[in-house]
Amino acid sequence: MANEDNLFKNVIAHAKEYGFVFPSSEIYDGLSAVYDYGQNGAELKNNIKEYWWKFMTLLHDNIVGIDAAIFMHPTTWKASGHVDAFNDPMVDNRDSKKRYRADQLIEGVIEKLEEKIEKEVEKAAKRFENFDRAMFVTTNARVVEYQKKIDDINARLKDAMGNGDMAAMKQLIDDLEIADPISGTKNWTDVRQFNLMFSTEIGSLADDANKIYLRPETAQGIFVNFLNVQKTGRMKIPFGIAQIGKAFRNEIVARQFIFRMREFEQMEMQFFVKPGEEMKWYEYWKDKRMKWHQTLGLGSENYRYHDHLNLAHYANAACDIQFNFPMGFRELEGIHSRTDFDLKAHEKHSGKKLQYFDTEDNQNYIPYVVETSVGLDRMFLSVLSKSYVEEKLEDGSERVVLRIPAPLAPHKVAILPLMKKDGLPEKAEAIMNDLKYDLRCFYEEKDAIGKRYRRQDAIGTPYCVTVDHQTLEDDTVTIRDRDTMKQERVKIAELKAKLVDACSINNLLRKI
Amino acid sequence: MANEDNLFKNVIAHAKEYGFVFPSSEIYDGLSAVYDYGQNGAELKNNIKEYWWKFMTLLHDNIVGIDAAIFMHPTTWKASGHVDAFNDPMVDNRDSKKRYRADQLIEGVIEKLEEKIEKEVEKAAKRFENFDRAMFVTTNARVVEYQKKIDDINARLKDAMGNGDMAAMKQLIDDLEIADPISGTKNWTDVRQFNLMFSTEIGSLADDANKIYLRPETAQGIFVNFLNVQKTGRMKIPFGIAQIGKAFRNEIVARQFIFRMREFEQMEMQFFVKPGEEMKWYEYWKDKRMKWHQTLGLGSENYRYHDHLNLAHYANAACDIQFNFPMGFRELEGIHSRTDFDLKAHEKHSGKKLQYFDTEDNQNYIPYVVETSVGLDRMFLSVLSKSYVEEKLEDGSERVVLRIPAPLAPHKVAILPLMKKDGLPEKAEAIMNDLKYDLRCFYEEKDAIGKRYRRQDAIGTPYCVTVDHQTLEDDTVTIRDRDTMKQERVKIAELKAKLVDACSINNLLRKI
Repeated sequence: MANEDNLFKNVIAHAKEYGFVFPSSEIYDGLSAVYDYGQNGAELKNNIKEYWWKFMTLLHDNIVGIDAAIFMHPTTWKASGHVDAFNDPMVDNRDSKKRYRADQLIEGVIEKLEEKIEKEVEKAAKRFENFDRAMFVTTNARVVEYQKKIDDINARLKDAMGNGDMAAMKQLIDDLEIADPISGTKNWTDVRQFNLMFSTEIGSLADDANKIYLRPETAQGIFVNFLNVQKTGRMKIPFGIAQIGKAFRNEIVARQFIFRMREFEQMEMQFFVKPGEEMKWYEYWKDKRMKWHQTLGLGSENYRYHDHLNLAHYANAACDIQFNFPMGFRELEGIHSRTDFDLKAHEKHSGKKLQYFDTEDNQNYIPYVVETSVGLDRMFLSVLSKSYVEEKLEDGSERVVLRIPAPLAPHKVAILPLMKKDGLPEKAEAIMNDLKYDLRCFYEEKDAIGKRYRRQDAIGTPYCVTVDHQTLEDDTVTIRDRDTMKQERVKIAELKAKLVDACSINNLLRKI
Repeated sequence: MANEDNLFKNVIAHAKEYGFVFPSSEIYDGLSAVYDYGQNGAELKNNIKEYWWKFMTLLHDNIVGIDAAIFMHPTTWKASGHVDAFNDPMVDNRDSKKRYRADQLIEGVIEKLEEKIEKEVEKAAKRFENFDRAMFVTTNARVVEYQKKIDDINARLKDAMGNGDMAAMKQLIDDLEIADPISGTKNWTDVRQFNLMFSTEIGSLADDANKIYLRPETAQGIFVNFLNVQKTGRMKIPFGIAQIGKAFRNEIVARQFIFRMREFEQMEMQFFVKPGEEMKWYEYWKDKRMKWHQTLGLGSENYRYHDHLNLAHYANAACDIQFNFPMGFRELEGIHSRTDFDLKAHEKHSGKKLQYFDTEDNQNYIPYVVETSVGLDRMFLSVLSKSYVEEKLEDGSERVVLRIPAPLAPHKVAILPLMKKDGLPEKAEAIMNDLKYDLRCFYEEKDAIGKRYRRQDAIGTPYCVTVDHQTLEDDTVTIRDRDTMKQERVKIAELKAKLVDACSINNLLRKI
């Protein structure tokens, strides 16, 4: 556990030191849970977007992309349920002046009880040779008591959350005698619902100033445009609409670097299908999306499905694709069978028909929707954290290398004249001028070549091309491989094709 | 003028009908001055971004790109001057309940006086054969009187705006006896400053709830990251930081389709130079940016420079690149020599040194900045409006064609089996599967081929590949050119190279 914590800390420090992720407005001491992507981060992020967008819209001729605005008519969020139900319960401690999520305070008590059970189990496991855990936990008086408490708390919590009963939440905090970890007191305010949407005022007319929201998800931009796209694009069901864009949530407790930010980016696709066929497509997209992730080559064992047991009110099936982040397996992408919930709600609130006329069946219907939704920033974190490796080399030295899949790497190739003289820089520049339209190049002529290799390792450049004196004689260069550190001599004439082939997002897409 | 108005209306209608631009949240009757990009618009927009991003960051090895958040620390906007000075003067009419920009109401009076002068000039020009306009306007009593009024109003307006004196603005409205065009009354409220930034509240802690702003420009995200990028990227002056991203302005009067929106997107580059060298780089970027625009092929005569005579407080030189939009020449891009105004202001407000150590001169300094700033949505409108052509064909029929430069077109090629039988669709699909990784393809098999060509014309697809019975015999297809409507028979084996060459953004970049 300590190692994982350290790994995460090292990844975060590396991300800043090498221009991947900076705290937002850092010169003003930052803005909580908001980050900026630096010169290498922006390229990595763009490459992830391209990999997703091309997969969705180039490789599926029944999926098109749109780019809806962040601002939407406020009734959108009434229809979607966000105005009424996109809340977290919050409570303030009057002494520490700190705010908490009430449900997380209560879950903290449950976690402590679970730890107590584990301790009893461990103790017993040491004492008995043929230790039967299942038998033990159902018979040991102390464990049974802990478990009963857990079940009681869980039942009351679920009840209170389900009914939006904030008084019951407060009662539970009082009954459990929860103390603020900072002040140590139980001097709590009432529990209140806190809506996670950011709001602002739009408009020019005095009597028309409107409260609008920053979208908390991009999906609704697709739903309100469903008919516009279907009709103007002459789309036939089944078809999909894809979108990449910013969303905003005023999380009470935001944390874990770019994993949970207040401003974040989603890559979402809504797939419109005939009612009754949604489970077939749900399975189809579960499979396709997993393949898309695994094709990156970060290790298939780092992905797993996690089915939702408690379904959201709009879903009839849902699962996550989880990734093995530094802090453990967490949601990377969600795949949801959203039924006709959203389109129906927009029909009701807008008074406009949002139906599809199926020429095969000769009937109108509201399509069902299967959604795939990736957190772009989480995807970024998955690539960055799994690529980050601290290596001990044979000669005893150490290096940090980002083994970013070549097609996603910020720079594809570094062009390095061995020395800053004898015409080597000029030759290197000529090579770069030939490559730079097709491959993002990094040029560097300062410092010893070994030092330059290390710097390229640290930003994940898969190939270093070194221009030396032999280059001037026979028009060959060496290509050094980031991962194996092996060098190979190749003709300049063959360089571009070789590198483009290895670094092409299209080639990656062909493997899915 | 009527023609131009019609053209603009037709472009807007076409943009909606063919999936380029939809009013935002249209099912809820839209949101004023906010638009969504549809399935074809999103692709065109992405291609413009790619053309800009690659030009800036791939072709200049001293320019890197970043992606800063929309949310920034609020002191950023204090330092930049936006909190105090990013205002428009507004006034409400108590009877119509409408809100106006006070300066625009006053400018309306000036425009009317100018129209009166023009009428006198026209009348006189008809009467006298050798009409000397300059002589006439300085001697005709009526014109001289109008001109004196104009000068008076202009002087008072400039004075009031410069001093932020809203009482003087109100007095001017009263003195000019301006009436509301709707109510017809002069029942005005006081004139107030209206800040154009959208604000919202961020934060989880009760005592820490912070008013923050949606950025009104992307430039400040670059300035606050200047040292982070310079140090982690080991950048040497001169160097640039590029960024594409959303910005938000609560315009009192927003209009002209996507030309002036409340949510819009900028493509900005800040180029950091040694103090004293800024004019050299200002001229360099004026030239480079003009070439970038003109290389698109929309007609060099549609671009012109427009120097700023009244410089903003932060600039020592500034000009626009104007484009010939349907409503006339308007700003498309701004090029500004911003001096050290911004970095200096952030130094002052943050207390952090924002200086560069120049190893050649062995001295520290705050760099000067030359900025290039394109409105992405305006760029989109320039391409769309200039590409839109209504043509009368030889056979008497009409067509609407979007002559979008091929590298920017939403789809590069349409794959059209002549008939929906005899294995033609299967053959067409096989061709598409070979092309689709490298070229965005559109597949369509329904309707007569002529109708399908027209639909591709209307969305700007530069090439239609038709698969017919001869294809099955000799593996050739016809390529139809969107602009000439001529067809050419080519071997399938040569298709990809030919089309990629014609549609490649890289090839466009090579021409700059």
